[in-house]
Amino acid sequence: MSTQGQVITCKAAVAWEPNKPLVIEDVQVAPPQAGEVRVKILFTALCHTDTYTWGGKDPEGLFPCILGHEAAGIIESVGEGVTEVQTGDHVIPCYQAECRECKFCKSGKTNLCGKIRGATGVGVMMNDRQSRFSINGKPIYHFMGTSTFSQYTVVHDVSVAKIDPIAPLEKVCLLGCGIPTGLGAVWNTAKVEPGSIVCIFGLGTVGLAVAEGAKAAGASRIIGIDIDSKKFDVAKNFGVTEFINPKDHEKPIQQVIVDLTDGGVDYSFECIGNVSIMRAALECCHKGWGTSIIVGVAASGQEIFTRPFMLVTGRVWKGTAFGGFKSRSQVPWLVEKYMKKEIKVDEYITHTMTLTEINEAFDLMHEGGCLRCVLSMHP
Amino acid sequence: MSTQGQVITCKAAVAWEPNKPLVIEDVQVAPPQAGEVRVKILFTALCHTDTYTWGGKDPEGLFPCILGHEAAGIIESVGEGVTEVQTGDHVIPCYQAECRECKFCKSGKTNLCGKIRGATGVGVMMNDRQSRFSINGKPIYHFMGTSTFSQYTVVHDVSVAKIDPIAPLEKVCLLGCGIPTGLGAVWNTAKVEPGSIVCIFGLGTVGLAVAEGAKAAGASRIIGIDIDSKKFDVAKNFGVTEFINPKDHEKPIQQVIVDLTDGGVDYSFECIGNVSIMRAALECCHKGWGTSIIVGVAASGQEIFTRPFMLVTGRVWKGTAFGGFKSRSQVPWLVEKYMKKEIKVDEYITHTMTLTEINEAFDLMHEGGCLRCVLSMHP
Repeated sequence: MSTQGQVITCKAAVAWEPNKPLVIEDVQVAPPQAGEVRVKILFTALCHTDTYTWGGKDPEGLFPCILGHEAAGIIESVGEGVTEVQTGDHVIPCYQAECRECKFCKSGKTNLCGKIRGATGVGVMMNDRQSRFSINGKPIYHFMGTSTFSQYTVVHDVSVAKIDPIAPLEKVCLLGCGIPTGLGAVWNTAKVEPGSIVCIFGLGTVGLAVAEGAKAAGASRIIGIDIDSKKFDVAKNFGVTEFINPKDHEKPIQQVIVDLTDGGVDYSFECIGNVSIMRAALECCHKGWGTSIIVGVAASGQEIFTRPFMLVTGRVWKGTAFGGFKSRSQVPWLVEKYMKKEIKVDEYITHTMTLTEINEAFDLMHEGGCLRCVLSMHP
Repeated sequence: MSTQGQVITCKAAVAWEPNKPLVIEDVQVAPPQAGEVRVKILFTALCHTDTYTWGGKDPEGLFPCILGHEAAGIIESVGEGVTEVQTGDHVIPCYQAECRECKFCKSGKTNLCGKIRGATGVGVMMNDRQSRFSINGKPIYHFMGTSTFSQYTVVHDVSVAKIDPIAPLEKVCLLGCGIPTGLGAVWNTAKVEPGSIVCIFGLGTVGLAVAEGAKAAGASRIIGIDIDSKKFDVAKNFGVTEFINPKDHEKPIQQVIVDLTDGGVDYSFECIGNVSIMRAALECCHKGWGTSIIVGVAASGQEIFTRPFMLVTGRVWKGTAFGGFKSRSQVPWLVEKYMKKEIKVDEYITHTMTLTEINEAFDLMHEGGCLRCVLSMHP
């Protein structure tokens, strides 16, 4: 029997308040309105940005909410006026929308989209500025316009990338956040050239994707920096050629890197979210041209700082969101690249679990050996 | 009688210690050694970077020294191995060298040159790491590799741009610093495109040259910001289309600009050297692509800061030195552009005086009506 137009009751992990364990609840998911689609989420991964909001560090964080933003599923039904996708399409929900109509989308200079930001930033849908999630009539906020920790979710049509239905959803769900962020930081934001010297602060999923992207771009040296030396063995497989543990050095890490690279690196990437490391990442760049890309998300209220001389003498400070990829246009292309074995995905998945085990899955993220844990939503 | 190979005694303005008036002294200028040229300085202008060092704010400042770095003259003699210029050539001494051999020059990515920096940074010449200036045997330090407040100076051969001898030296001396810095910040560092919205903090010589460069690049709006509203009338002649005096607003200046420009400017330029304004200049840039260029020189030890979110959402923070121009290659080209009336120079000269009046000339710089004061060195 079709569920189209009906409220669907399904399981979702609800964050009732910051820092408290998520609770698996029966949630009512309203039908999609104009410009919206309802997606049956089959697989979702966990990302540090979920824990960032969950931990109360996100000034935009609203509770209760349903977290999750790195997932894949199948469209269950579409709302009025939705033409570019239909029921049955395989999709990756994208927290960066792409409307192709706003000032941002039409600029040709950025992947940020302004169309629905005013709604997703406050946990609601644009059409009526209400949530589609509720429990016994009490609304539950959306998160990042995706809320993939639910068996069904409602997203804006400008926020779903339609992908090749042959692609394994239990793998390509990772193309919703971490891997594109790292690859794109290299390819779109930094535009690393062959022969470049690159360094990466933080060897989690995003940092490893930076390494993979840098290797593909032809970087000659890819220096990984992490306070956990055990990560180096895995990092080699992603392209890291040298490893530095700041704990092994007395000098500031930027000086260690400058000394090791005849004046500094061509490109540095901060993949942690620590403002002190962001400074080190800028200052280890080569005078005259070294470019530092902030990829990590810092806690609210924290600031970056440096001497202006660092910039006046030619270093460049930039940042990236979703690696600069246009979501609806380019996520399908990334899926194709994965299918052609041109980019890794499987190698980032270290654990698989089910929705009901989501709290244990988050505990795993704090262990060094975990890159991505993928949850099966309908086991 | 030729002075070649002889010590020349001439007049120079000596900075004996920070913040004390310059003293016109008889200075002995030794002959140029290998890779050096001795230049008869005919005209020099004053720049705020001179007062920066003179005021004791420059951590590299050494005393006693001979300041000055925006000048024009004629080569009196050349040292051993100098092949690219000869006695009689008209030249502009350049504080940014261009050796065409070092890692920086060969990178194709920067105008900074590394060859002589280790010597000029400590006020001496590279060949013997001594000064060519002395008074009764007591050495006087060089400054920025130029020291143009002397009737004769010795500079490295990689630091002189040979120019068309027809060019009026009393005008083109300005192409040694301020004007190229502003034009180049727009053309080389920011690469402003037609239709861009630009804002400029500080409407001195450099800020006006930014306006001129932005107009030439086809910017659609050029917003000038200064706390002296009297500057707007002059600024219009250089291309400024709108004027904001922060004193007229209660909101932070970055918010005023964002409101006025539907989200922010495409390019901003800080031409003051104030770290708080550097922050405002970044934060008034448009999300997604706005780029801020630090042109001003901040006092030693001061730091810039902002929220990393500003960069993660697509703003770019850069700086420029000598506007990114390669000195020996491009200063002659700027002279040609002036001769063809494609760039202004005369319009920046508000005062002309002589070397002996140098202290009065510096006093003038603190008055709003003064852009550039040119000193005649051999009146």
